[in-house]
Formats: sequence, C-alpha cells, structure tokens
Amino acid sequence: MAAGDLRSNGMQRREFIARSALALISSGAGIGAASSAFASPNDEPETKMSNKPTLAFVVYPGMTPMDIVGPATVLTGSDFKVEFVWRDMQPVEGEMPHVLFRPTTTFSKLKQVDILCVTGTGNPYALLEEYDMLDWMHEVGGKAQWVTSVCTGSVLLGAAGLMNGYKATTHWAMMDDLKAFGAVPVDDRVVVDRNRISGGGVTAGIDFGLTMNARLLGEESAKARQLLMQYDPHPPFRSGTPSDAGEDLAGKVRGRILGGLQQRTPDWQRRLKSSAERSARYT
Amino acid sequence: MAAGDLRSNGMQRREFIARSALALISSGAGIGAASSAFASPNDEPETKMSNKPTLAFVVYPGMTPMDIVGPATVLTGSDFKVEFVWRDMQPVEGEMPHVLFRPTTTFSKLKQVDILCVTGTGNPYALLEEYDMLDWMHEVGGKAQWVTSVCTGSVLLGAAGLMNGYKATTHWAMMDDLKAFGAVPVDDRVVVDRNRISGGGVTAGIDFGLTMNARLLGEESAKARQLLMQYDPHPPFRSGTPSDAGEDLAGKVRGRILGGLQQRTPDWQRRLKSSAERSARYT
Repeated sequence: MAAGDLRSNGMQRREFIARSALALISSGAGIGAASSAFASPNDEPETKMSNKPTLAFVVYPGMTPMDIVGPATVLTGSDFKVEFVWRDMQPVEGEMPHVLFRPTTTFSKLKQVDILCVTGTGNPYALLEEYDMLDWMHEVGGKAQWVTSVCTGSVLLGAAGLMNGYKATTHWAMMDDLKAFGAVPVDDRVVVDRNRISGGGVTAGIDFGLTMNARLLGEESAKARQLLMQYDPHPPFRSGTPSDAGEDLAGKVRGRILGGLQQRTPDWQRRLKSSAERSARYT
Repeated sequence: MAAGDLRSNGMQRREFIARSALALISSGAGIGAASSAFASPNDEPETKMSNKPTLAFVVYPGMTPMDIVGPATVLTGSDFKVEFVWRDMQPVEGEMPHVLFRPTTTFSKLKQVDILCVTGTGNPYALLEEYDMLDWMHEVGGKAQWVTSVCTGSVLLGAAGLMNGYKATTHWAMMDDLKAFGAVPVDDRVVVDRNRISGGGVTAGIDFGLTMNARLLGEESAKARQLLMQYDPHPPFRSGTPSDAGEDLAGKVRGRILGGLQQRTPDWQRRLKSSAERSARYT
C-alpha cells in the first residue's frame, strides 16, 4: 500500500468522520441496514433520516462477487448509504452463477454519490462498450469525493476517463491495460493517489475496504470490523502473486486467462484500443 | 490449521483427484459453469456428462455472503457440481441486503452429496428451529464423503447432530456454543478431524476453500486458484483475533454481537439448549 498517501486528503477524511458520527446518532435507511449480529459493531436503530455518505457500487453482469462482497462486508449500511446501481432494477448475475445483486437504483435516478466504487470482472473488455454505464461513471465520478475500484474495476474507471494521470492498481494479469487510459500502474495491494483508491485483484477488496474504512471512519472502526470478520488470514500456501507462485505456474494461469478472454471476447484488443481513444475524448 | 491431519483420508483424496481428472475431460453442467476468465485456471468446455463431485452449499435467509462467496470462489463449477440447496427455489437474501442466492435444488430433491458445506451467519440461533433443514443436513451429511463448514455453520452442523465428538472451529465469539453439541472447539483457522473440515469466522472461508481445494484436487490446483484470486493478503492492521485486537476492542465487539443477538433473538439461550437436546436424539 502507498502508505505515505494515507495522510493526504485530511480535510475530506475529517469531514467524513464528522458526518459519520452524525450518522451514528440519526442513522438512516440505506440498503445496508444492519440485519445481523455481524453486520456492524456500531449498528444503531434505523430511522428515516439519513446523513450517511452515499457509497455506490456498480453492479453489472459478469462482475466477480468476491470483489464486491469483500469491501461491502467492511463498508456496511450501518455507516454508509450503500447503493447498488445499474441501468435497470432487474437482479444482475455476476460471474458466479446463481449469485445475484439486486439494484437499489438506476443510472438515470442516482446523480450524486460521495464514494463511487467499481469492482472487477475476469473480462472487463466485455463491458467496454456499455457506454451508458461509462458515461454515468464519468458524470458522477467527476463530482464524487472518492473514486475507487477493486480488481479490474480500475480498467473500467479508465474507460470512463477517470484515471488519466493517476496511479492505480488492478488484477496482476491486466496491469498493463491501465496504461491505455493514461493511468500509472503500481504493483501494490492498495494504491491511493489523491482521491482515487484502487485495490488489486479479487481478494484485495478486503484490504481495500479496511483501508477505506480507516480513512473514512477512523482506525478503531476498521479494527473492530476486521475483528468481526475474523480477518486473520492464514493462506495455506504462498502463491498469491506471480513472483510467489513462480514463473511456471504464473505462466500457466496467465495463459488460461488470456485463452479464456480470446474465446469469450475475441476482439478484446480492438475494444481496449477503441475504448482508450473514446476515454481520451472525455474532458 | 491442524496440518498433521492433512495427510489423513488419503484414499478419499486420491479418489477425488482421479474423479476430478476425469471431470476435466468430460466436465459437466453444474451451477458453477465457468463464465469468466477468472472462473478457473482449468476450465474446459462444458458437456452434459458430469463426473464431478457434488458440492452442496446450504443457502438460508440471513447467511453471511462472504462465508459462501469465499469458498465458492475457490471451489468452482469447473471442478465440482456446485449446488445451492434450500427448501424451495425462491432466491434467498443473506444478511447483506440485495445480495441473493438462487437455489439450484431443494431438500426434497437432493438426497446425495459428496461434500456438504454449511456456511455461517451472525445469528445461527435464528436457524435452530428450521427442522427440515437440520434433518436434511443430518440425512445427507451422514452419507457424505466430507462434512464441512465456515464460521457458525459448524454450530448448525452441531444442531444437525453431526459434530458430536469432533474437533471443530467457528467464529471466535461463538466457540463455546460448539460444546453444547458435543464438539471440541479448537482455536485454529481451519480444523480437520477425520472427514469434518471447519473454517473459522467469515474470511476464514478463503483459507478453508484453499485447504479443501488442495486436499481434493492437489496442491498445484490450489496454488493456481490462489494466484487467480490474487490472495496475497495485506491487512492494514493486526486486529483479526481477540488477542490481536486487544481486550478493550474485543470486549466492545463481543458486547455488540451479544447485544444484537439479544435484540434479534431474545430466546437464543433457550434455543441453544433445546437444540442441543434435540441433536442428541439423532442417531
């Protein structure tokens, strides 16, 4: 993590903590209304008033459930007005069959968010021509206090013209694609550059969520949530990065990813190029 | 993790690896049919034949999405015939609002599974009188090759009479409740005792999934999946266990959990006691 950056944006952070303290008193009816004992260490009775910051996740077909469930388990409705946004209200199936995300609002209704979070997919190229989604991200992201991503969500933010000149990370297999959108790839678990915060591949969404939680609500809140989630990881192997996995295995996995892309979206390279040109036209 | 146990059940492990190799050749139409580049490093074209082991997750109202999404991201439809089972086919909302799990089959239809996996919830006590669910778990779990859990799923396995005399783990805040069902609580991330494998709270489902993957499909498969998920955790804090979090914070979080239970299921202690008596009557 780019830890040095964690102290930037101090003004925004203080503002959020103040708003959140208010939210704990008069907490509102976001979608994340705590419904379980694990929902939050801070959960308070819900009222109809809300002063919580709006945290909007874009839910789109093919998204990786872990990318969104990770941070959304950390950043819940107790502290944020969580929105799942898509072009219509039909439940959206991600890349895990039978796991559905039901939108809470639509692109045409939600025009202002405090935090935009775009999570990833194994095939971001399939989404590069969803122009209404990209235009919405550009519009609300440009005004948002924080523009954030997990995994290849940063590629989609790039396609929405929001990453030009920003340091960012993404899934290890797609780091180079960030450059197409003028972003500066940084091989860290969580990368903070001004008001952009990006997490690496899939499981990095948990570390991203805790980083966001600490920044927005303070360190004790993040630590309480980490304890609630019993996030004391003990991977049985050391194989979470290409260098840890070794060249042989990393090569095989990279080959499978590229093979899968080639099969599913054969024109992915053309899409990337044309999307990069389109993103440069946003001003 | 009880690493010494990892070498037991060698026969079962060899059998699974052989069946899985077969599955890679004639892979079948489970729910986890790979639909994305990240779905599996081993994904092969699907056919209507299936020799994949059946891996059944029970999906019930109030379940913690992370508990199931974690292991299900590791143990996918490329290698297993994944089933989501509930009493009917209506989508089930867990404890994260707007995240739905659509059952693939029902208790009355699915009578044989290779691997039973019961994931957790912040309020397992709310489920202790879902007798059709518990009876189904008891019936299929008694014949299954592996009986597994994440988080408080092991409490539900206990209520189904499947944990008597077995070592197991669960969420740190509910470890003592395992004793009510004759289980022996072990404070490890993943606990293996004969054909029972349990993971700790919430995020432990990822470590559990990798442990299962290695055991059933071999170490290279698990390492490939870890790389695909970029599981190289870097928690920004050290607060994932009560001892790491410190007495003050752990006490606050425990108080919140108990307060939430008291509010949501005021008779949770009566339920636990009566469920323990009922579970002892299974033979």
